[in-house]
Amino acid sequence: MSVTAAKGFTAAGIAAGIKESGGPDLALVVNNGPRRAAAGVFTSNRVKAAPVLWSEQVLRGGEVTAVVLNSGGANACTGPKGFQDTHATAERAAEVLTGHSAGEIAVASTGLIGLPLPMDKLLPGIGTAAAALSEHGGERAALAIKTTDTVHKTAVAGGEGWTVGGMAKGAGMLAPGLATMLVVLTTDADVEAPALDAALRDATRTTFDRVDSDGCMSTNDTVLLLASGAAGVTPGQEEFAEAVRTVCADLARQLIGDAEGSSKDIRIEVVGAATEDDAVEVGRSIARNNLLKCAIHGEDPNWGRVLSAIGTTKAAFDPDRLNVAINDVWVCRNGSVGEDRELVDMRYREVRITADLAEGSEAAVIWANDLTAEYVHENSAYSS
Amino acid sequence: MSVTAAKGFTAAGIAAGIKESGGPDLALVVNNGPRRAAAGVFTSNRVKAAPVLWSEQVLRGGEVTAVVLNSGGANACTGPKGFQDTHATAERAAEVLTGHSAGEIAVASTGLIGLPLPMDKLLPGIGTAAAALSEHGGERAALAIKTTDTVHKTAVAGGEGWTVGGMAKGAGMLAPGLATMLVVLTTDADVEAPALDAALRDATRTTFDRVDSDGCMSTNDTVLLLASGAAGVTPGQEEFAEAVRTVCADLARQLIGDAEGSSKDIRIEVVGAATEDDAVEVGRSIARNNLLKCAIHGEDPNWGRVLSAIGTTKAAFDPDRLNVAINDVWVCRNGSVGEDRELVDMRYREVRITADLAEGSEAAVIWANDLTAEYVHENSAYSS
Repeated sequence: MSVTAAKGFTAAGIAAGIKESGGPDLALVVNNGPRRAAAGVFTSNRVKAAPVLWSEQVLRGGEVTAVVLNSGGANACTGPKGFQDTHATAERAAEVLTGHSAGEIAVASTGLIGLPLPMDKLLPGIGTAAAALSEHGGERAALAIKTTDTVHKTAVAGGEGWTVGGMAKGAGMLAPGLATMLVVLTTDADVEAPALDAALRDATRTTFDRVDSDGCMSTNDTVLLLASGAAGVTPGQEEFAEAVRTVCADLARQLIGDAEGSSKDIRIEVVGAATEDDAVEVGRSIARNNLLKCAIHGEDPNWGRVLSAIGTTKAAFDPDRLNVAINDVWVCRNGSVGEDRELVDMRYREVRITADLAEGSEAAVIWANDLTAEYVHENSAYSS
Repeated sequence: MSVTAAKGFTAAGIAAGIKESGGPDLALVVNNGPRRAAAGVFTSNRVKAAPVLWSEQVLRGGEVTAVVLNSGGANACTGPKGFQDTHATAERAAEVLTGHSAGEIAVASTGLIGLPLPMDKLLPGIGTAAAALSEHGGERAALAIKTTDTVHKTAVAGGEGWTVGGMAKGAGMLAPGLATMLVVLTTDADVEAPALDAALRDATRTTFDRVDSDGCMSTNDTVLLLASGAAGVTPGQEEFAEAVRTVCADLARQLIGDAEGSSKDIRIEVVGAATEDDAVEVGRSIARNNLLKCAIHGEDPNWGRVLSAIGTTKAAFDPDRLNVAINDVWVCRNGSVGEDRELVDMRYREVRITADLAEGSEAAVIWANDLTAEYVHENSAYSS
């Protein structure tokens, strides 16, 4: 159902010729109102792609009419010309969707860094996409933003008479703040920009920001939430925020499940932390430990690598009180050997690591992937 | 030449049966004086192996008579029993080397975390090693501390009438503060403990601390410097420090050259930094970027991944002024496309990345490795 699950939205996904493969590479999502409120969260990488710089400006107005998304090129590290290309993209979309200004058009790009976009293909593609706009176009839009994704990702939640839907792409360079991803969420709930912003920030903080596929942070991460108000319903803020969080969590889980070359999804839960920040810091350190990621790939419950990852953090803990469970078997107790590691069954794709810092009652969950030869092949065999 | 290049030292390396393979696994290095000054630097991981906790105590006295080193088991995360085992190891060495106390015996271990050492094999091995001590035992000692190392590592430097020699092991879990390694350096120069300490800290800061094979920090890192005074010469502090630095740099380079599964050694030089700390932070971020490490493995001069790694740091820089060279070809200029990437020749094992922050005149060099399918295999196929 994707971005057209909510009323008031149309979308399209077409092949504009940006990708050499000839596959779908241009998506258009349009908010037909009556409201056009929007919120956005962007990469915290200080090297930001042109479309991120552009869309950050657009979002400051709190209003977005349409989003143009392309795969096949990130338009990052492309200098002043790259920014002009993004601007031209928004201008063309504004022309095609008459009655709107470029300042209300968000742009998102994904693909190789440092390559100029083929504007001779992209600009005409916007007209083609506009002509294909449909209330059933959500799936096609989701397909058009894929890069190395093996499947497209969509999710839906909602309440009485209103809906939140969304689509996402991302399969590598997934690390906090944010995972490398493009996400567009839409809702027909009648919600103003500040409330959208609050719900979106709250949701991303505990979902996309806690996905760490490979420790690498992208230049292009963009998560947008657009509200059309077409349902004529204004849900309570907490109920609305919960629906946004549900869709974000669903999409984040799908991103991890489709991470480049991965064979395991690793759910790292840090418990007993003195603070939530400690729990997140420890979770990320575990998530990024290449040796542990290899061990999980090899179905080896190597808890020593968990401890050595915890030991690199500034979190409050006593090495002699740390406990670690892998798939619920407490293989490490009080910083030393615990239950028999032979009891750990690691045959399934999902692996659960629980790290107990024995310092307090705060907790956090970070999702990661294993490190595989396929990841190496996928990321060394071609520029991406 | 190793640890017996300097006068006043004897060493041995034997097979005590700690390793299941039956290979050499126990080394002994003895300082026969007349001086027995020593300095040590240890892992900054907060989860420290028992021998690290023990040796830190020993080094506080500034005097070391002998070092017992074993491969085949890290004695990390082994609880109070692990510490007792280390203590018993030092006691046994003190007994065998009559006339010394356990408080002057440093211990170092390497191998799998979370496994108790087979003390029934280790303790008798100390006697066997003591019987084999020789002024020519340096090479055998270096062989006995290998784990996944494919070659043993030794280096020598010195001045008029005095020598600094050393041995190292380490092939994975190499990351700053320190690289995962055991290193013993010896000198016959007549230098007191505080001067040894100053020279060693200065040397490790710019050598072992700037080696980052896989971003993983060990629980067992130990670098010791022992002085016998047997040459009867006290070199100037700067000359001595330079020799220590030379040996450390040589060994650090050998560690990178033998890193698990690596096919490329990556020399990352950050220039134009506002501060040395900025240069080191940026260098480490580049060194730890898995996507870049894969690209280098694939001989792909993917400078976009360098920029996205720089962008995750807090260092002073303007994204539009960053320059990046790969093997001296400036593929990125002013944050955008520079010279033709086709000009970059990446056929050789050593790859040089230069990142110019264009903010100042400080610089730092970090050494790293590529990420390969062999690294994954080596670290997923067995517990280590």
